[in-house]
Amino acid sequence: MGVIKVHGAAMSTAAQRVFTCLYEKELNFEFVPVDMASGEHKKEAYLSLNPFGQVPALEHGGQKIFESRAITQYIAMEYPEKGTRLASADKPSSSFLIWKEVEAHQFDPVASKLTWEIVLKPMFGMTIDPTMVEEYKAKLAKVLDVYEARLTKSKYLASDSFTLVDMHHLPTINLLMRTQVKQLFNARPRVSAWVADITARPAWTKVLAMQKVNFYPFIILSQIV
Amino acid sequence: MGVIKVHGAAMSTAAQRVFTCLYEKELNFEFVPVDMASGEHKKEAYLSLNPFGQVPALEHGGQKIFESRAITQYIAMEYPEKGTRLASADKPSSSFLIWKEVEAHQFDPVASKLTWEIVLKPMFGMTIDPTMVEEYKAKLAKVLDVYEARLTKSKYLASDSFTLVDMHHLPTINLLMRTQVKQLFNARPRVSAWVADITARPAWTKVLAMQKVNFYPFIILSQIV
Repeated sequence: MGVIKVHGAAMSTAAQRVFTCLYEKELNFEFVPVDMASGEHKKEAYLSLNPFGQVPALEHGGQKIFESRAITQYIAMEYPEKGTRLASADKPSSSFLIWKEVEAHQFDPVASKLTWEIVLKPMFGMTIDPTMVEEYKAKLAKVLDVYEARLTKSKYLASDSFTLVDMHHLPTINLLMRTQVKQLFNARPRVSAWVADITARPAWTKVLAMQKVNFYPFIILSQIV
Repeated sequence: MGVIKVHGAAMSTAAQRVFTCLYEKELNFEFVPVDMASGEHKKEAYLSLNPFGQVPALEHGGQKIFESRAITQYIAMEYPEKGTRLASADKPSSSFLIWKEVEAHQFDPVASKLTWEIVLKPMFGMTIDPTMVEEYKAKLAKVLDVYEARLTKSKYLASDSFTLVDMHHLPTINLLMRTQVKQLFNARPRVSAWVADITARPAWTKVLAMQKVNFYPFIILSQIV
């Protein structure tokens, strides 16, 4: 099927989802850095890869794929037998379907909002809105209460195996665990054990090693704004 | 596999996604109304169906499924041969994967925010924030520009057939087409033809017929807040 090319930025949380997936699958890939500081992701060449002008974008066997969660599902299905089995080879279980949507619609909107307030605003010298922080910490606490109960039933969110569902959480959890918000994770024993487990995976360690601090603030900002 | 039960409210946009799917699949189902006005969706019995306390929730063959897009994928896979084929019977195409995520991460957050400002706030006597409306109309216009280009390549978003991807847009498009925002859809010929096509489907007409105006404001509010 030819070379796998990932266009993106090492510090983009969405690109990190894709890198993690490729490392889990033990697939070689070519990383094509997108110079977001100069607005390369909003120029014509990049827009032909992703018309929404966001990183990452994947090229593989003549196909152009965007949206990080579409890319990870594509990779998992193209290479079911390689590396970690991140999704069922045939019909997905109902719990896989449910918890994949929970990450996208319950966890990520809240976690991304907190990341913006607590991690990114200070980097840009912007003022944190304490009301917003408290509101979203309360929302995240409710989500994590559901996760704590869920993790009494299976070791990972969708099943007893690590899947795309857990993997999709990694980049945002990584940022939040460096802030005051880590208390919300640590206060819940099963959530805390799950976070320790998934962040210790070799694939994730490789993604962290890709990061260079130079363009950190700008690249994440472009991603979110 | 036994009876299909949908717990929800006829006016909930998320529940409407599921009803549409069941009508497209020509499946019989039992609709169990959830009395959101009295907070039934936040009480223990309902939380055992969906721990996030949101409608809808599905019961089928001993399984409890929540998150509207997880339910529609579950139904499409359980009954591939019934009614409209809403998803590939085997491996989904990359375009299906991409555009399913686009609805969830590009279209819906913007469309739902506009629905809140323009449709729901006036119902509750709340003041519309004109700055927010203009900001999100500009965001929706950009999304619809991408859709207009996409619809030169295939009749529907994922392929030349109607799929879950198009179906997931219906409830929010229905609300926005009753507001000033309809101009954004109508100004784009292919988007406009696509909206006319998908809103004319018999399954969607059946969903509209389920609606009773009595609890309209409250039920939608509970959904979004």
